[in-house]
Amino acid sequence: MEPDSLHQCRSGLRTEIYRKMSAEGLDALLVTDLPTIRWLTGFSGSNAKLLLAGGKTVLFTDFRYQEQVKHETSGIATVILKDALATELASGKWQLGSRMALQADHVTWQEMRQLSEKLGNREFTPVSSFFDEFREIKHIAELDRMRRAVALSETVLEAVIGMIGPGVTEIDIAAEITYRHRKLGAEGDSFDPIVAGGPRGAMPHAKPSPATFDPGTLIVIDMGCIVEGYASDQTRTVAFGKVSDEQRKVYRIVQQAQQLGIDAAKVGMAARDLDAEVRNFIAAAGYGEAFGHGLGHGVGVEVHEAPRVGTASTGTLREGAVFTIEPGIYLPGRFGVRIEDMVALGPNGAEPLQRFTKELIEL
Amino acid sequence: MEPDSLHQCRSGLRTEIYRKMSAEGLDALLVTDLPTIRWLTGFSGSNAKLLLAGGKTVLFTDFRYQEQVKHETSGIATVILKDALATELASGKWQLGSRMALQADHVTWQEMRQLSEKLGNREFTPVSSFFDEFREIKHIAELDRMRRAVALSETVLEAVIGMIGPGVTEIDIAAEITYRHRKLGAEGDSFDPIVAGGPRGAMPHAKPSPATFDPGTLIVIDMGCIVEGYASDQTRTVAFGKVSDEQRKVYRIVQQAQQLGIDAAKVGMAARDLDAEVRNFIAAAGYGEAFGHGLGHGVGVEVHEAPRVGTASTGTLREGAVFTIEPGIYLPGRFGVRIEDMVALGPNGAEPLQRFTKELIEL
Repeated sequence: MEPDSLHQCRSGLRTEIYRKMSAEGLDALLVTDLPTIRWLTGFSGSNAKLLLAGGKTVLFTDFRYQEQVKHETSGIATVILKDALATELASGKWQLGSRMALQADHVTWQEMRQLSEKLGNREFTPVSSFFDEFREIKHIAELDRMRRAVALSETVLEAVIGMIGPGVTEIDIAAEITYRHRKLGAEGDSFDPIVAGGPRGAMPHAKPSPATFDPGTLIVIDMGCIVEGYASDQTRTVAFGKVSDEQRKVYRIVQQAQQLGIDAAKVGMAARDLDAEVRNFIAAAGYGEAFGHGLGHGVGVEVHEAPRVGTASTGTLREGAVFTIEPGIYLPGRFGVRIEDMVALGPNGAEPLQRFTKELIEL
Repeated sequence: MEPDSLHQCRSGLRTEIYRKMSAEGLDALLVTDLPTIRWLTGFSGSNAKLLLAGGKTVLFTDFRYQEQVKHETSGIATVILKDALATELASGKWQLGSRMALQADHVTWQEMRQLSEKLGNREFTPVSSFFDEFREIKHIAELDRMRRAVALSETVLEAVIGMIGPGVTEIDIAAEITYRHRKLGAEGDSFDPIVAGGPRGAMPHAKPSPATFDPGTLIVIDMGCIVEGYASDQTRTVAFGKVSDEQRKVYRIVQQAQQLGIDAAKVGMAARDLDAEVRNFIAAAGYGEAFGHGLGHGVGVEVHEAPRVGTASTGTLREGAVFTIEPGIYLPGRFGVRIEDMVALGPNGAEPLQRFTKELIEL
């Protein structure tokens, strides 16, 4: 059973969501993305749909989860589906009203067709990012889980850095990360670990390869895990053997840029302004072309969620948001450096959740 | 670069698919599920859409995969998208005709809305399972990859069985499986390993728990890996400590039922008849209620694909199909037994791909 604090929080959130639905004239909302369902109910099964209608919440799943759904949820109705969801919804048992919202990004054309057929004479309204404004502000019990995920993953990072040596491959290190996350009690990785040495480090999304590390190589390690449904995400870049003055210089710029991002983040600031401060710093240092992705992203039940912190962001940074600050410099064919922490934004600014050193580690 | 044989095979398949499109009056088909795209082109990136139109194949992806898409594909056009796909398709560069098919199960309502807006005046036709008839028949180069995935995973199974002992948990064994799959060169697990002891073995989809194994326990281990894009899947049930006569008896029934399934499978047979033979055998042994899932499923670029072999199957078993035979007996609150091999169906019947013993291993 989950801590009461989080179930209370969820109950309060559902009330706020009913209020938003009412304000937008929505009689019912069908939630079809699993991370939002887990966030709003605690249910972690692989098959779930959630109906919000008439100030009530109903979770639909299948027989495999009959026991689990009872243990994991509180204060909502649960239904074990025998028929298709559309058939169940058309049974007349549920108060759907005339205007029903669907998550346009999380419902397939096929599901739409079935719902239209069974629930005709009803206006279907597409919604997108409906839950973002709620999900991006973290409850203290959510933050606590992320702190535990971070601590666990930092322990693993320390261990695997100690394993880098001659004959060891990127895949070896990545496999160790996954293994140790699980062994220490995480539900699993929050994403496939990135372990990228030398020129591969210049590809922000490199897959671990069977390559060993040449002396004088920078190695980017980007990793995270899931603890009780909440994700962590962190990146460190370490040196294997003696690296060049240029590698050191680039490392130092990224390190300073990342610290600048932490120091500059303030409640109420436009997210793109934070991105711009860091981006301008990197550009002024002569590497403007080499930082090709956004500064950061929110983390919660998903490892990438609101708020986005990038050049195209339109939102502001709100108190209670948890997001990454992860500038990088990528020199194609040569090497890359990225340093990433998660931060929790409070009235006094951004507090990094990671404690792991950001000084260059030389192995 | 992939072996030429598989690229030749893919080229031939694309020709057959154009023919089927033509027969069904489809001018264009937009493929939006990644496993089918990998199967048909070799491309393994996480972002891809495939257009089949006018006897041509075009793969759309993003800048991250600029190099990878060249290495992995052959004989098709590739486009690095800068705009949204709908915008690119509306550019007039592509010969879409008037009737365009979409995979109804693999396109979101949002994507539909964007395509309709940009490509109006066009009939959109939903297709479902369009590729199943092609995907379920395996080329020899596909079978070779599955054989390698099976061999690799059997090596891991042998190793982890040797690790079961006092103080070892389900999660420990599951983490070892994932780790060793990666270390031996697999792309990863084909699904999260199931390691379920005692009463947990009675839940066909149990998640590994932090529980250790009591003496006298049956442990279900269901695992598979991916080698060059192709999956494996296997289950063995082993005894930890001295098990009861009833546990032995149930094991023996499942073992005989599984062998019966292998022996009975024939080209041209209705898939549900194979399921029924095994199901009737288990029922005659007194455990009809305790086998609650289908007999098996196809395996290929996905670990669950066509053909389905269950009570509701409507298809026949075709030469060249690769599928699992995995009967089980589940006694809620007590224990479960499942034994699973993959088989390749040929003119002489079903050849199991697994070599691992199916005699009861007692640890």
